[in-house]
Amino acid sequence: MALRCCVVEQTRLDTARIQAARRVIDPIFLDTPLYLCEALERDLGCTVSIKLETANPVGSFKARGTEVVASLLADNGSRAVVCASAGNLGQALAWSGRSRGLDVTVVASRFAPAAKLDRIRALDARLELVDGDIEMARERAAAVARYDGIRLVEDSLDIETCEGAATIGLELVDTVPSFDAVLIALGGGALATGVGHVVKALAPEVEVICIQPLGAPAMTLSWRQRRVVTTDTTNTIADSVAGRHPIPEVLDDLLLVADDTVLVKEASIIAGMRMLLDRAGLVAEPSAALGIAAILEDLDRFAGQHVLTIVCGNNVDVDAYHRWVGTAPIHTS
Amino acid sequence: MALRCCVVEQTRLDTARIQAARRVIDPIFLDTPLYLCEALERDLGCTVSIKLETANPVGSFKARGTEVVASLLADNGSRAVVCASAGNLGQALAWSGRSRGLDVTVVASRFAPAAKLDRIRALDARLELVDGDIEMARERAAAVARYDGIRLVEDSLDIETCEGAATIGLELVDTVPSFDAVLIALGGGALATGVGHVVKALAPEVEVICIQPLGAPAMTLSWRQRRVVTTDTTNTIADSVAGRHPIPEVLDDLLLVADDTVLVKEASIIAGMRMLLDRAGLVAEPSAALGIAAILEDLDRFAGQHVLTIVCGNNVDVDAYHRWVGTAPIHTS
Repeated sequence: MALRCCVVEQTRLDTARIQAARRVIDPIFLDTPLYLCEALERDLGCTVSIKLETANPVGSFKARGTEVVASLLADNGSRAVVCASAGNLGQALAWSGRSRGLDVTVVASRFAPAAKLDRIRALDARLELVDGDIEMARERAAAVARYDGIRLVEDSLDIETCEGAATIGLELVDTVPSFDAVLIALGGGALATGVGHVVKALAPEVEVICIQPLGAPAMTLSWRQRRVVTTDTTNTIADSVAGRHPIPEVLDDLLLVADDTVLVKEASIIAGMRMLLDRAGLVAEPSAALGIAAILEDLDRFAGQHVLTIVCGNNVDVDAYHRWVGTAPIHTS
Repeated sequence: MALRCCVVEQTRLDTARIQAARRVIDPIFLDTPLYLCEALERDLGCTVSIKLETANPVGSFKARGTEVVASLLADNGSRAVVCASAGNLGQALAWSGRSRGLDVTVVASRFAPAAKLDRIRALDARLELVDGDIEMARERAAAVARYDGIRLVEDSLDIETCEGAATIGLELVDTVPSFDAVLIALGGGALATGVGHVVKALAPEVEVICIQPLGAPAMTLSWRQRRVVTTDTTNTIADSVAGRHPIPEVLDDLLLVADDTVLVKEASIIAGMRMLLDRAGLVAEPSAALGIAAILEDLDRFAGQHVLTIVCGNNVDVDAYHRWVGTAPIHTS
């Protein structure tokens, strides 16, 4: 445990700074519901607690980070900010920026879910679409920042985005009874390294398991090979975690805090979304069902355990969501 | 305002007792999410805040009341308790009783949603089904209580059920900015009189509007005629609020705290459920969509206002829910 604490000390995160971050985040995003969902137990063979990050004005956990960023920018007298986003960060930054008088530009893929793009626009942000994926959006956002001379928010690389996400971890570790494992969606890595840092610092006995779709495995492959591995394409419905170019600094942190990384099939993600709807009455976007998908793919591993999964977003296109969940109810043996 | 305060003093509720009730309710049911849902604004023409009472172990607000009941029973050394339930009270009493070592019997209609009945059983309660509606279940529960010599919990009549629900009101009134109106599902009346009492005591300028389905209008007709009006049948998908025999004491309180009562069509309830799913990513059971249904039926009345609606339950049968919400997305002009 002493060793583990030393290891965690080597991440870019700092527990005291994460505690300080809580104080600049609008309370509407903090102290989110955390509860045991017994209706999931029978199908999954384990005790499942839900940490719900969707019942807020932007429908995802991302505002925890953008609140920290926007608060610092406002304190420094900044007027404008730009980010690339798969859709959720953009909404969150638009919300946090608007309430502090910042001009927000979001660069996104034109293939991002229409609901996410609509909601970014509705929050008064300037939305610029690129004819490519999130990696192209990241390049374009960097160019906008250079051209306009404004702050570029880089999700997972910028420490504030990790610290904001890490505040979820603070809300997990003082729970009694504690968990055997925490299941975290893995995309750019802010959520996984943020929550992972706090869990390993304050409850090191809890297993930190990060989950990615088989169709977007770059960060998982990087973690396994302990070096950055990129992919040429992605192929997943989990748009929020579909990056191809892991950030080296984030990988370094992930190597220190993740006990395991798991890749799951698309069918399992869909089954997870349906199970959350049918059993828990929760709308989850695909990335938010990765934890349930991981349990479904390895029931033996989690049998009898108490696992926690973070339902991290509920921003879906209605038509797609009905296609995924709208057929006959799930039946597991 | 002084007059209004005096009027509220005449209800069976007491604000100090409601504040005390908070202290015996498991915190997992308290301080639930309350947030502005901008995505609803465009369709509804008003600002809508959501008070979400579904992200907890029983999927409805009812545990606030059963926690108060079960806590008192445990303090008094009681061993058993019985209630009639449309499904949500039974789950809540089963949860609250189990954690305090009470034997819980729930009497319900065999026509209640299967998901609700399954979840009552899963919480270790004894479930007895009657071949009739909630009114027959109430009679049977009373008979069980007499025969077994155990406490009968009567929803809305027993002051603890109202005080528990009223704790929601405490969480509404210290919100800034305040609301123009609070939209509350009206069934037996615990939620409406509980929240209504607190709102009228502490924020009397806020309009308290109670909503019932046209197919189950007994309490609304009673409020309008200022005397108990019963109906022979009900015909609504909103199973949680489908009573026929209003309780006189509850009607007296409702007459003191409700500014208006509204009856809505089944089609509006379904449209409300779909709008909460499509725009807000929320699963609402029919009774939890009554507030949105009321706005949809009278857009002019609420135009430009800031209204709050309590999403009070999410326990639905999956097949029925898919039938209600599973078709093409809503399009409003």
